[in-house]
Amino acid sequence: MTFSVYELSIPSLTRGLTNLSAILDKAVAYAEAKKFDSAVFLQERLAPDMLPFVKQIQIACDTAKGAAARLANVENPKHEDNEANFADLAVRIHKTLDFLKSLSAAQFEGAEGREILLKFPTNTLKFTGLDYLTHFVLPNFYFHISIAYALLRSNGVELAKRDYLGAIQ
Amino acid sequence: MTFSVYELSIPSLTRGLTNLSAILDKAVAYAEAKKFDSAVFLQERLAPDMLPFVKQIQIACDTAKGAAARLANVENPKHEDNEANFADLAVRIHKTLDFLKSLSAAQFEGAEGREILLKFPTNTLKFTGLDYLTHFVLPNFYFHISIAYALLRSNGVELAKRDYLGAIQ
Repeated sequence: MTFSVYELSIPSLTRGLTNLSAILDKAVAYAEAKKFDSAVFLQERLAPDMLPFVKQIQIACDTAKGAAARLANVENPKHEDNEANFADLAVRIHKTLDFLKSLSAAQFEGAEGREILLKFPTNTLKFTGLDYLTHFVLPNFYFHISIAYALLRSNGVELAKRDYLGAIQ
Repeated sequence: MTFSVYELSIPSLTRGLTNLSAILDKAVAYAEAKKFDSAVFLQERLAPDMLPFVKQIQIACDTAKGAAARLANVENPKHEDNEANFADLAVRIHKTLDFLKSLSAAQFEGAEGREILLKFPTNTLKFTGLDYLTHFVLPNFYFHISIAYALLRSNGVELAKRDYLGAIQ
């Protein structure tokens, strides 16, 4: 039995973002119940030199979007980082989900061996498609969602591991 | 091109635990520089009802060990949860890495379609091998490593994303 890069990426990324969206809804409900503006969460950090909550969500989305675009070999759409509240973040997540949904399994054929270049200000990372997915995309994607979860948990929002993992059956 | 469940699991789990081990070394060095007992980290939590640091490491290890055992269809060795300091945690991680190393790619043949049952006190989760890996093992594994990283970062240990991701090239 064989499986494709599509099967190894799109369902996991879709599932992670869908769970993240539900986690954000719980943060909004918590803020409403406690009568504070949920937007204060956006600038919360776990350490002064860690990125704030809003960036964790933006990077989780862009990690998924960039992975899907690079592995399907299509243009990576630009999503501006201008979210100011949870409604904006929900739009960002759903725009990302729509992009993942727009791609077909056929577009990922041969992606495992394709050369992927990631350009950063000071260096360029070079991967095969499979290494990019397993050693860069998935660890990064789950990292940013986990940090967002941790930020909300450490600020009192009632969440459990099942919110992060989503329904299993 | 096809790839196997072995390729999708063992390198990622090995890499994650190796990076975690190096992160723990940095925590020990930080405690030494600041002249406090590094063992105090073991009971640190991000929220009163989240698991402490020591549990995050134990669960990261057991997620990797259980995944390898179940996907290779061999007995899951029991590792006792009795670590009292960072030296013990390093042993735990290396014992887990040794177990991953003991398995061969051939043992994972057909693992993607094998039925995996996870028994919990109140329910049993049923997966195919591939769903177990992608929707349970990897998100959980990266979650516990990310939370451990976040705990150390929020307590002043100097770490960056490259410590979590490891060297790319």
